[in-house]
Amino acid sequence: MPEARPTPGTGVAPHEPAAAAGFEAVFGILREHMRELDACLRDQLTAFEPEIQAMVDYCIDTSGKRLRPALVFLSGWRDGVPDDQLVRAAAVVELVHLATLVHDDIMDGADLRRNRRTAAREFGASAAVLLGDALFAHSLTLAAKYPTPDICHDVANSTRKVCAGEIVQTLRRGTTNITRADYFRVIDLKTAELFRLSCQLGAKLARHEDAFVEAAARFGRHLGIAYQIYDDLVDFFGEEQRIGKTLGTDLASGKLTLPLLALMDRLPAEDRAALAAEISGEAAPQSLLRLRQMRETGVFGVVTAELETELAAAAASLAPWRMLPPVPLLLKLSDLLQSQVTALRARAA
Amino acid sequence: MPEARPTPGTGVAPHEPAAAAGFEAVFGILREHMRELDACLRDQLTAFEPEIQAMVDYCIDTSGKRLRPALVFLSGWRDGVPDDQLVRAAAVVELVHLATLVHDDIMDGADLRRNRRTAAREFGASAAVLLGDALFAHSLTLAAKYPTPDICHDVANSTRKVCAGEIVQTLRRGTTNITRADYFRVIDLKTAELFRLSCQLGAKLARHEDAFVEAAARFGRHLGIAYQIYDDLVDFFGEEQRIGKTLGTDLASGKLTLPLLALMDRLPAEDRAALAAEISGEAAPQSLLRLRQMRETGVFGVVTAELETELAAAAASLAPWRMLPPVPLLLKLSDLLQSQVTALRARAA
Repeated sequence: MPEARPTPGTGVAPHEPAAAAGFEAVFGILREHMRELDACLRDQLTAFEPEIQAMVDYCIDTSGKRLRPALVFLSGWRDGVPDDQLVRAAAVVELVHLATLVHDDIMDGADLRRNRRTAAREFGASAAVLLGDALFAHSLTLAAKYPTPDICHDVANSTRKVCAGEIVQTLRRGTTNITRADYFRVIDLKTAELFRLSCQLGAKLARHEDAFVEAAARFGRHLGIAYQIYDDLVDFFGEEQRIGKTLGTDLASGKLTLPLLALMDRLPAEDRAALAAEISGEAAPQSLLRLRQMRETGVFGVVTAELETELAAAAASLAPWRMLPPVPLLLKLSDLLQSQVTALRARAA
Repeated sequence: MPEARPTPGTGVAPHEPAAAAGFEAVFGILREHMRELDACLRDQLTAFEPEIQAMVDYCIDTSGKRLRPALVFLSGWRDGVPDDQLVRAAAVVELVHLATLVHDDIMDGADLRRNRRTAAREFGASAAVLLGDALFAHSLTLAAKYPTPDICHDVANSTRKVCAGEIVQTLRRGTTNITRADYFRVIDLKTAELFRLSCQLGAKLARHEDAFVEAAARFGRHLGIAYQIYDDLVDFFGEEQRIGKTLGTDLASGKLTLPLLALMDRLPAEDRAALAAEISGEAAPQSLLRLRQMRETGVFGVVTAELETELAAAAASLAPWRMLPPVPLLLKLSDLLQSQVTALRARAA
């Protein structure tokens, strides 16, 4: 699976042969689409005021994995020719995503993203707040170029949900009275919503019937939830984490993700209190200890079971539509995530 | 004039009889409209995720002056009955404005706005960034409810310009190599754009002919520039400033506004260097000294002359359209600003 924050390098051009083949199967056919997307994103620069173009250019870097655009293209797949309407929708969702990254990095106080300084570090937090705003605003300007206002409505609506999810997550940092349902609610909003929108827009713009548009949207939503669970697993079990470089950034920042929730459930009361103190910041995070406990208590298996339930639900959404061109391609994308999970399992053992 | 940031209390329900009468002449006829606007804004709460409704409610406080909504209502004036389409547009521009205030207060590190804690102080800067985003997003969702996407396009486009203006202003803080043209460019973007949009939307939604829509938009733009100049004058010459409470906040925050630019031009080289050091933060701001120098060198007159040029340009835009119902009302609004300036002149002497 080609993207995993906050650990750059986890996943794209995967090292494992199965994942690498899966990656090529999906992204290989999208090369021309991604070139057109990059050209479209570059073209947007001139829509910004001259004084801020260099800053916007800095944010629209082309090193991202373009996962959401891929969902737009695949959901709207007809004959492999990049369609202008789909390219624009891909640019819209990517701009929304980039705007959220700019604002996320301010909140996380992050120095680097994709091996470069974050916009907040490069231009200052104040300018980064406004730069994110300008990116949001431009994504909506672009969405308003379709003949009907429903695309704009969908994008604005999803953007609000993404922000709501991030707000709830931000306010919960350091708190431990969080349930599994709370966790799923946040990732549904902050991550799955934009995956859902991407699939919905792709299918809608390719003029598929409403029932398939809804099915594709449901697929996107379940895939997004699965993807966020994967991302949260990688924070403990990923390759960079093996060498201890960025182990447990979620624990350190007080984010009670599913692996930590599952661990919490499996610890005796005393250990649970100690972990709660680490999450609330009262005690220093013991990431290595927690990882060892996760291994001992089978957390990886429990969490991947949840993830795989979501992948199964994603596939089930598409089951009635196997004859449509997007479906086998979308399923290859969820297979790719599955193979990444399998590769992670081998490392997690 | 009913609004003056960053000095709450300057202007609404003005103390001077002429200004008070002018205020009543404009806002008296808008009472029902403003009630409907408030109801519409309250109705929006349910569109936000339950977890963030209380925070959004806190931001949509009803103590604001609703200047931009007034421009929507007056530009679209027909027979005094609040029209749903205009009420929604008024809500859209007010939400965009409120979102910019939420983000401005983060950057300014402001504690209070309208005598209450800012969202940033109340919920933390991180949540406030996202809360502003959610307000922006919802304003666009609302704008996407019109049958054609052009309203959404206009709003998103203006929002980007407002952000661009704020970015440029932010990056220039503390720098002194700023020209009069630079100043006008920033206020055109950060303030006049939303005034322009408000008039454009009002006239457009009331189905006035294109030429009048353009004329109303030009009126709004010039009024917005005049209004920002007034706001920058108030920072030195306003009533609260007389008692020294918030004198020269622009100087203290390194913002080279028109009064300071005009003073800079009128100071001998040595004093100019000292003022530059205050703006760049190398020296403590000498606000009282600078105010005295402004009085001695006639800065108030020079700056109000610029302001009045904008008001004249605003009125001239509407000259060919005197027979249309909105025009006398819009002119009363610019007269109101003029009477506020006159009242300020009496205090500035």
